[in-house]
Amino acid sequence: MATDSSNGLEGDNTLQSIRYHRGSLQLLDQRKLPLETTYLDIKDASDGWLAIREMVVRGAPAIAIAAALSLAVEVYNLVNYNGTPVEAASFLAGKLDYLVSSRPTAVNLSDAATKLKEVVSKAAAAAASNCQDVFQAYIEAAEIMLADDVASNKAIGSYGARFIQNQQKDPTKLSVMTHCNTGSLATAGYGTALGVIRALHSEGVLERAYCTETRPFNQGSRLTAFELVHEKIPATLIADSAAAALMKDGKVSAVIVGADRVAANGDTANKIGTYSLALCAMHHNIPFFVAAPLTSIDSSLSSGKEIIIEERSPKEMLNARGGLGEQVAASGISVWNPAFDVTPASLISGIITEKGVITKTGTDDFDIKGFIKRAVGQCIA
Amino acid sequence: MATDSSNGLEGDNTLQSIRYHRGSLQLLDQRKLPLETTYLDIKDASDGWLAIREMVVRGAPAIAIAAALSLAVEVYNLVNYNGTPVEAASFLAGKLDYLVSSRPTAVNLSDAATKLKEVVSKAAAAAASNCQDVFQAYIEAAEIMLADDVASNKAIGSYGARFIQNQQKDPTKLSVMTHCNTGSLATAGYGTALGVIRALHSEGVLERAYCTETRPFNQGSRLTAFELVHEKIPATLIADSAAAALMKDGKVSAVIVGADRVAANGDTANKIGTYSLALCAMHHNIPFFVAAPLTSIDSSLSSGKEIIIEERSPKEMLNARGGLGEQVAASGISVWNPAFDVTPASLISGIITEKGVITKTGTDDFDIKGFIKRAVGQCIA
Repeated sequence: MATDSSNGLEGDNTLQSIRYHRGSLQLLDQRKLPLETTYLDIKDASDGWLAIREMVVRGAPAIAIAAALSLAVEVYNLVNYNGTPVEAASFLAGKLDYLVSSRPTAVNLSDAATKLKEVVSKAAAAAASNCQDVFQAYIEAAEIMLADDVASNKAIGSYGARFIQNQQKDPTKLSVMTHCNTGSLATAGYGTALGVIRALHSEGVLERAYCTETRPFNQGSRLTAFELVHEKIPATLIADSAAAALMKDGKVSAVIVGADRVAANGDTANKIGTYSLALCAMHHNIPFFVAAPLTSIDSSLSSGKEIIIEERSPKEMLNARGGLGEQVAASGISVWNPAFDVTPASLISGIITEKGVITKTGTDDFDIKGFIKRAVGQCIA
Repeated sequence: MATDSSNGLEGDNTLQSIRYHRGSLQLLDQRKLPLETTYLDIKDASDGWLAIREMVVRGAPAIAIAAALSLAVEVYNLVNYNGTPVEAASFLAGKLDYLVSSRPTAVNLSDAATKLKEVVSKAAAAAASNCQDVFQAYIEAAEIMLADDVASNKAIGSYGARFIQNQQKDPTKLSVMTHCNTGSLATAGYGTALGVIRALHSEGVLERAYCTETRPFNQGSRLTAFELVHEKIPATLIADSAAAALMKDGKVSAVIVGADRVAANGDTANKIGTYSLALCAMHHNIPFFVAAPLTSIDSSLSSGKEIIIEERSPKEMLNARGGLGEQVAASGISVWNPAFDVTPASLISGIITEKGVITKTGTDDFDIKGFIKRAVGQCIA
């Protein structure tokens, strides 16, 4: 394994939210975008925890990888550790639990932590291993997650672009609406929903991307707009509330959003406002897609009703810049500020994954379990 | 006629956007709300034009009355005018045309100007009149508009509250969602959609009002929230995009919005985001009402397709505080910022006017013409 395991995107013009080389991690401080491009040094799991909690890094896939890599950097530089392999595994497991607590509702993060714990417990159990072998196994597994995320996003982009083109009457002039930020800034690179838009653009068939502001934290106007301008993708910013009027004007070929968590039946928790967009898309007969890696699917939840919605600070609504800026709203008003909403599977046309698009062909329901079984079968075969 | 023609609301605790006594007009500078309560002196039609254009005063009914009164103040203080009655009428008509140009899409404003022109041309034609009689007729007509607007809003509130209570299973615990600002700040006093909420509250049956932020100018979080806090009405602010999730949670008994312009078939142009709320309300079987005085109905438009939608400055989306504040969005992004959208009559349960609620009883369409005919008949009878 090379000691320089980056996400393989340095060569191109794509924005990087995660800059990693073995022993060193930097995160783009997304709170300062779009006005400043500043990277923060992340030296250990504590720095990683804080960066996630404070929204330096956000986006379900990016959070998981940033957390994993922060601990990889910590143990790489931990030269004087003298514990047994089992102690090293336990040390890593404890740190992973701590990292998960930074954003408890992010399924990718807890999923990654579970997988990494399995890796280190296997390494600790292997004959003739020492604590450094356990650390080495952890670091390599975390690095593979980074590389895998970019590869999986590129596959999502490619599958999604092909599927949407096949569906449309005029596949050479597509206008796609998206919500929140699901691009290079939300993932290890390339993006999920924005990855599909990127793929459509690179194939020369994207007429325009429409991004919503995404109140109250403005991930759309600050981050997605920043990425779209950076990548020279023709794009227009709209208020969340203007989406329906734009659809009525016939300007939207498809809506593609990301997912924080997908239940076993396809119900999808995503940034507040997603449900409203899905309802409006349905009314205008516009296909509505969720783009997410299979790791976003939480098979333990039978439906979206089991998803607990995190409420965020009223300050995000009361003050500018997501609560950090000047007062905007009237003093004394109560606020309801849910981070997510749940879009029922009935409103979703397809779930675009790195293994293909899950559809409802011939039925009203998604067969997600069957799809995963077949996809994993393909991998083993 | 008393020389002190105010809107009759000084006594109570209601906010006043328009402070008028014969010869003197002050407008609450709504751009500074909710942080500062400052009144601007309006001495003539030029001051009025600027106040409307610069959004010192907004809301279709308030704009019309502020414009009419600004000219009333100008002519009241115009002691050295020596023209003939016909010249005076022509002078007033010219000033009214100029005032209409401050906000060309506001139907109440052009409607008011037309009515006032008729008044002055009649006064000029009357035997033995001099220019001061023409001015006097104009001033009295403008003052009647002010008093009539408050009376008409109170009637809207009363009709709307009664109708909604009759419709609901539990009429003693109503939660009502509204959009934009349609209260004392948007009218001469009391309000239209917010007038209905006010009436439900004063009857003790309002559990909670939900007001949307109303991006991008934040009339909801700045103005409606300010009024609701001021009046001690239990109220919660939500992001525009959270409305659908709140409806899904079963928290909304009805949605009531105002109107910038209602076409002859009931299609309604109102603040951007109204159409999206109407679609979401329909999906959740929540009644959706438009509350507006009959002057908001433009019978010359057969449907909403004929309504031209004004686009506003991209700055409202790119910077905080409706374009006046710090940069928020990424530099270089294109913006689509329509001021209004059109909600088709099919999504509207009823139009609450000062003469009663226009419904679709027994048909899919509103019989607005018939309703007006009957209502005007009642007045004459």
